[in-house]
Amino acid sequence: MKPHTQIDFAARVRESFSKQTFMTTLGAKLVEVTHGEVVIEIPFSDKLTQQHGFQHGGAVTSVLDSACGYAALTTVSADAGVLAVEFKVNLLAPAQGERFRATGRVVRAGRTLVVSTGDFKAIGSEKPIALMQATIMAVRGREGVSD
Amino acid sequence: MKPHTQIDFAARVRESFSKQTFMTTLGAKLVEVTHGEVVIEIPFSDKLTQQHGFQHGGAVTSVLDSACGYAALTTVSADAGVLAVEFKVNLLAPAQGERFRATGRVVRAGRTLVVSTGDFKAIGSEKPIALMQATIMAVRGREGVSD
Amino acid sequence: MKPHTQIDFAARVRESFSKQTFMTTLGAKLVEVTHGEVVIEIPFSDKLTQQHGFQHGGAVTSVLDSACGYAALTTVSADAGVLAVEFKVNLLAPAQGERFRATGRVVRAGRTLVVSTGDFKAIGSEKPIALMQATIMAVRGREGVSD
Amino acid sequence: MKPHTQIDFAARVRESFSKQTFMTTLGAKLVEVTHGEVVIEIPFSDKLTQQHGFQHGGAVTSVLDSACGYAALTTVSADAGVLAVEFKVNLLAPAQGERFRATGRVVRAGRTLVVSTGDFKAIGSEKPIALMQATIMAVRGREGVSD
Repeated sequence: MKPHTQIDFAARVRESFSKQTFMTTLGAKLVEVTHGEVVIEIPFSDKLTQQHGFQHGGAVTSVLDSACGYAALTTVSADAGVLAVEFKVNLLAPAQGERFRATGRVVRAGRTLVVSTGDFKAIGSEKPIALMQATIMAVRGREGVSD
Repeated sequence: MKPHTQIDFAARVRESFSKQTFMTTLGAKLVEVTHGEVVIEIPFSDKLTQQHGFQHGGAVTSVLDSACGYAALTTVSADAGVLAVEFKVNLLAPAQGERFRATGRVVRAGRTLVVSTGDFKAIGSEKPIALMQATIMAVRGREGVSD
Repeated sequence: MKPHTQIDFAARVRESFSKQTFMTTLGAKLVEVTHGEVVIEIPFSDKLTQQHGFQHGGAVTSVLDSACGYAALTTVSADAGVLAVEFKVNLLAPAQGERFRATGRVVRAGRTLVVSTGDFKAIGSEKPIALMQATIMAVRGREGVSD
Repeated sequence: MKPHTQIDFAARVRESFSKQTFMTTLGAKLVEVTHGEVVIEIPFSDKLTQQHGFQHGGAVTSVLDSACGYAALTTVSADAGVLAVEFKVNLLAPAQGERFRATGRVVRAGRTLVVSTGDFKAIGSEKPIALMQATIMAVRGREGVSD
């Protein structure tokens, strides 16, 4: 992975993230963008629970999806936008804690397909709550898909 | 799959769903509960988008996760609660439309593990937007996990 | 999915399958090729077991992978070959029986990516032993990848 | 993960591996067994190819499946056998090389469910050819499932 200039990809990810209204709805914040890696944090919220009072696996997955997708966006050329093709998540432990951190990392950066892995942890703990393996597509020349 | 009495499992799913604050946050409604199958609907919302203005793949996945998990809950014994172990989602098309329908169906109902598949479609269209394959665990004797 | 002429895609799949030496090693036979669907059969073999004497999950998966990939090949243009991008398998029951049948079906046929689902059953039984959800890429212009 | 005594789990894995006739058919060898990690090697073989002459993704997956499953077996109690519940594989690059190494590592060792990740590389290269994320079940009291 040859990095694009830091200004380009980090600014690009920040601007794109700010357009994901769902991340705002979840209370998620983009906290780190480096080449091939993106970190998003999210506080525990009473509005995001499943039936036992843990954070819903879907909320956990949503933040991981954005982290993995934006990690991919740091590696694609400026003419491409990204779309998630598919992902798989293992939920290893109940999402309990005050604040969580999702990290997405690119493991293969192709021209058309990028593969990222992600983990979701409570801040202060090294024990993963969830693990993602995701495939992201670099899309070129499709109207409306520029980031 | 030998059905439990209809009153039991449908009431159980409805009560449990009402405790998932995340479903309320998403605007999702439980619309059908039959033995081995659960349907959840969700309207398009400007608060659930990704960067291109489509519904976020995480929001799509969250509703599918609940549909697959509650389909599983209709098949487990009354002493068990359910927890998602893992799922995989393919995002086949952008989530565009006014209203969507997620259907979860049990394909294997074991005593400990249940496997469900799910699809997510725009209402009025037969074309799937997303497909899920999920593994759910029936949990017994763990405090706080009774549904 | 607009079908290509039957002669083209069926002959193409048969010829390509005959080059998969691994299918010969497994004892697998291509038995049906229709547009968007491929069926492969395999007899139980003592040479394909895991430690409890069932057919190994990897052998089950291998046949499903070929069925899903060749279902995809029936839908792509003549200038493209196919490569599996990823797949996920749930192993629902031990692979016991005399003869098995893997069916792969295309659920979304895109120009670049095709998504197939597959099931693996003992012949004579409707109960699935395994379920696959797979993503296949149509590759154009890469030397050596023409089928 | 509190390790069982080394003699126990390593001997157990070696004995069980020797019963997997499919690994013999593939030419796979068990080369390392430590607590929570298992390495299997396999030479390139003309009998394991797909249509383009690479090792078949199913052969790659089969070896990863055994590596992930046996990594799990090193962590479960002596009264349990293991069965793969499901796995997901990303195929990142064509399986080209003279000899390959699959490593399975436990990331969560539960009493009933164990989650492992695996990678498959050509020996001498750090570039992964495939990545697996797998769920394995510890089975107790089922006849014939003791390893």
